[in-house]
Amino acid sequence: MTDLPKSMFATIQKFDGYSGSATGPVIDNAADWLENAEIPVPTPGPGQVLIKLRTASVNPSDIHFIKGEYGQPRVQGTPAGFEGCGDVVATGAGAEALQGQRVAFVASGSGAWAEYALTQAQMCIPLRPDISDDDGAAQIVNPLTAMAMVEIARSEGDAFVVSAATSQLGKLMCGLGRDLGLKPIAMVRRAETVELLKSHGAAEVVVTTEDDPVAKFAAISAQYKPRVFLDAVSDQLSEQVFCAMPNGARWVSYGKLSNEQPKLTQMGQLIFMNKRIEGFWLTQWMMSTPPEEQMRVVAEVQARFADGRWKTDVSAYVPLNKIISDLADALKKSDGKVIITP
Amino acid sequence: MTDLPKSMFATIQKFDGYSGSATGPVIDNAADWLENAEIPVPTPGPGQVLIKLRTASVNPSDIHFIKGEYGQPRVQGTPAGFEGCGDVVATGAGAEALQGQRVAFVASGSGAWAEYALTQAQMCIPLRPDISDDDGAAQIVNPLTAMAMVEIARSEGDAFVVSAATSQLGKLMCGLGRDLGLKPIAMVRRAETVELLKSHGAAEVVVTTEDDPVAKFAAISAQYKPRVFLDAVSDQLSEQVFCAMPNGARWVSYGKLSNEQPKLTQMGQLIFMNKRIEGFWLTQWMMSTPPEEQMRVVAEVQARFADGRWKTDVSAYVPLNKIISDLADALKKSDGKVIITP
Repeated sequence: MTDLPKSMFATIQKFDGYSGSATGPVIDNAADWLENAEIPVPTPGPGQVLIKLRTASVNPSDIHFIKGEYGQPRVQGTPAGFEGCGDVVATGAGAEALQGQRVAFVASGSGAWAEYALTQAQMCIPLRPDISDDDGAAQIVNPLTAMAMVEIARSEGDAFVVSAATSQLGKLMCGLGRDLGLKPIAMVRRAETVELLKSHGAAEVVVTTEDDPVAKFAAISAQYKPRVFLDAVSDQLSEQVFCAMPNGARWVSYGKLSNEQPKLTQMGQLIFMNKRIEGFWLTQWMMSTPPEEQMRVVAEVQARFADGRWKTDVSAYVPLNKIISDLADALKKSDGKVIITP
Repeated sequence: MTDLPKSMFATIQKFDGYSGSATGPVIDNAADWLENAEIPVPTPGPGQVLIKLRTASVNPSDIHFIKGEYGQPRVQGTPAGFEGCGDVVATGAGAEALQGQRVAFVASGSGAWAEYALTQAQMCIPLRPDISDDDGAAQIVNPLTAMAMVEIARSEGDAFVVSAATSQLGKLMCGLGRDLGLKPIAMVRRAETVELLKSHGAAEVVVTTEDDPVAKFAAISAQYKPRVFLDAVSDQLSEQVFCAMPNGARWVSYGKLSNEQPKLTQMGQLIFMNKRIEGFWLTQWMMSTPPEEQMRVVAEVQARFADGRWKTDVSAYVPLNKIISDLADALKKSDGKVIITP
């Protein structure tokens, strides 16, 4: 670690713990939650690595997290940011094999929105040289979520429903579904995205802002019989979509883009139609899935990015020292990932 | 069938199909849904048996059914009533072994609220001589539901929650739970039933009509960590109870005593806490459980009734020809089963 600086620029959390609110992954002003700081460069302990940042991605989970609405508590004064790509520049005992490697990572020790991030070695994936830094920045959270959730869908039949389908994750799932011979049914808000979604693999697209989207979905549901609803929105329309699905349907919520509290209007469907409502969290999947299965999925993800079946659409680049001023506006574009650069 | 009459007295359905409503298992006047009639005695086809009624029980599912709010459509002009006890007086091909036997049954061909009922041989359970006709009338729906649902609870830990616990089914589940070494947590409406529930096996009792039942339940939940909620009510309080349960909790709805539509106030719990919401329907359990497992459960049920660990508390007897006039009032007592007699 001879040539490493003592301190680094970072965008840090202003608050501790949970907020108790549930207002969704939207911010008007990053300064409400984050501030810039010069803080010590962390030192890797046993099993840990220090990563010099190349790129970091901004996921909805990052925004939930800085607002105190995520599944783990904030720590005031520590850098934000879960996911990125960079070079391992220092290692603790047992992690030496990663020294010098370019990796995709999820930060578990000190966040990704900083010049240097700290994490466990097992939270790093060495990147093939044919994966770009942009794809490397979004190699874990969305792609593994897509792989795991489409596998849930495949276990139940050949059609499934994806809400907020224009999201990066939505597009990944539509493409993966198509490649596996499944029939993704995409829910989108804007009619002008219908052709885009079809080109990404959607068999059918329902525009939720048009007249009577539930009736339109019901007709599609009767034809395709989707059994799994991969839902990032979790509002009343989601509940109506679930009610229009056939016997045995599973409503799998993995996000809460809406802050509406959906009512269960047809409890009898849970009883008589063997339906159920559940959640998906990648962290839980990682803790409960055998390592060899995770490695198989990681290899498949890299292969898909390397040969171009998947790619990360970048909507904006925001330098680290512009997060406070520019992030909220950059996130308002809904057609790709915001990438943070040092 | 030489000594069988040509026609019989029956209480028949006035309507066909589903009503589309969801108003719960309560009626003001049985005449709104049922009428008396003299109809032909049915003839058993292959695999069927004709049963001369001794006793029939009235379950919430019967009331849901006559109102068109159950998981199968009504058939106008056919007798109501799912469950009863009687003597097999005629058999179709392949069902001869049951001739002359006293059986508990679920009616699948012609309902139980009639002098004679028709069903499939496999919907009959020959009764041990030490089982009373009253216990025989309520030998299948509630006891098998209790056995199957407490088994779900046991698969997840040693404590579970039961709502509407003063119901016959609630008491069966508390007693069974205690006998298996589990900790049933009972939810009741009336403070005067607390000691009754404890004597039936409840480890803790929460009175939902007292101040802040959710806080009281939360304290109990923190101590016992129940993972399964066996819920007959399915209202907003149920949702709050579910939210106060620990990681991995399952809200298993098997009834809809309330017509409130519960809001999901903490969708994030499904995502981050691995919770889920599902239903239980005995019919589904019977279709998906291997016959040898069902036979084991049936034998255990009869043993429990024979040795007095379980008994059917009868709140009223209503003769067949008084159902129209007396059933609604008889059902207003909440401390036992209404038994119908020929």
